Amino acid sequence: MSASACRACRGEWPAAEAFIADCGPAKAYLHDDQFFAGWTVVVLKRHVTELYDLDRDERAALMDAVSGVARAVADVYAAVKMNYALLGNQLPHIHWHLIPRAADDPVPREAVWTHAHVPRALSPGDQRTRIAALRTRLER
Amino acid sequence: MSASACRACRGEWPAAEAFIADCGPAKAYLHDDQFFAGWTVVVLKRHVTELYDLDRDERAALMDAVSGVARAVADVYAAVKMNYALLGNQLPHIHWHLIPRAADDPVPREAVWTHAHVPRALSPGDQRTRIAALRTRLER
Repeated sequence: MSASACRACRGEWPAAEAFIADCGPAKAYLHDDQFFAGWTVVVLKRHVTELYDLDRDERAALMDAVSGVARAVADVYAAVKMNYALLGNQLPHIHWHLIPRAADDPVPREAVWTHAHVPRALSPGDQRTRIAALRTRLER
Repeated sequence: MSASACRACRGEWPAAEAFIADCGPAKAYLHDDQFFAGWTVVVLKRHVTELYDLDRDERAALMDAVSGVARAVADVYAAVKMNYALLGNQLPHIHWHLIPRAADDPVPREAVWTHAHVPRALSPGDQRTRIAALRTRLER
């Protein structure tokens, strides 16, 4: 997929309202579906498909960003464990899914994708509140 | 979980027969279930649970190892896309799942965990053949 055809590069995804923070080579957003509360995506600013297509320095900077956001998400959502996934099966532009697994998780031992569910969209007010909490933690 | 209770630290998982290569801070193994052919795991040598508990240099070295193994798996299995996941819901010792997605994948747009299936174990001979091919590619 060329950058010109990529929804991330065209600014069509993620939604601007979901923006959390700029973190070096990437930007963090709250995921559309908050069934697993705190699910965050970290999207590389430029169009690259595979982790091995980054050079060492850019990959390290990206993983520092991923780690920093994961730590903030884990703290704010009191995660038992964080899950990290770079898939790109639908949108082959590097973006990380960071998913806090809660104490009352419906499938605590399994990947979230095993659990079919109706997606949960937040109200605009709840989305702003959650993003503000993550920003405060990231600025610490 | 303490290191002394950890199946990875105790050497109980992955099986020695599945070993592919030593790659710096981690070791690579062929995954038990080869339904998605080429599924590989990269296991950190020491007991750490979250990516943000590594310091920058160790995290960068780990991600270089993950990238190098992913590139080899992608080449050997002619992957359309690689998937990378660090979950740890069952075993909270850092290990990466590297999953090549094939042209004839049963769920090409979805995560592999959406696809319930009977696990596929290889015969010992087939396992050795696949590991040899990955080693040859890694040594290039």
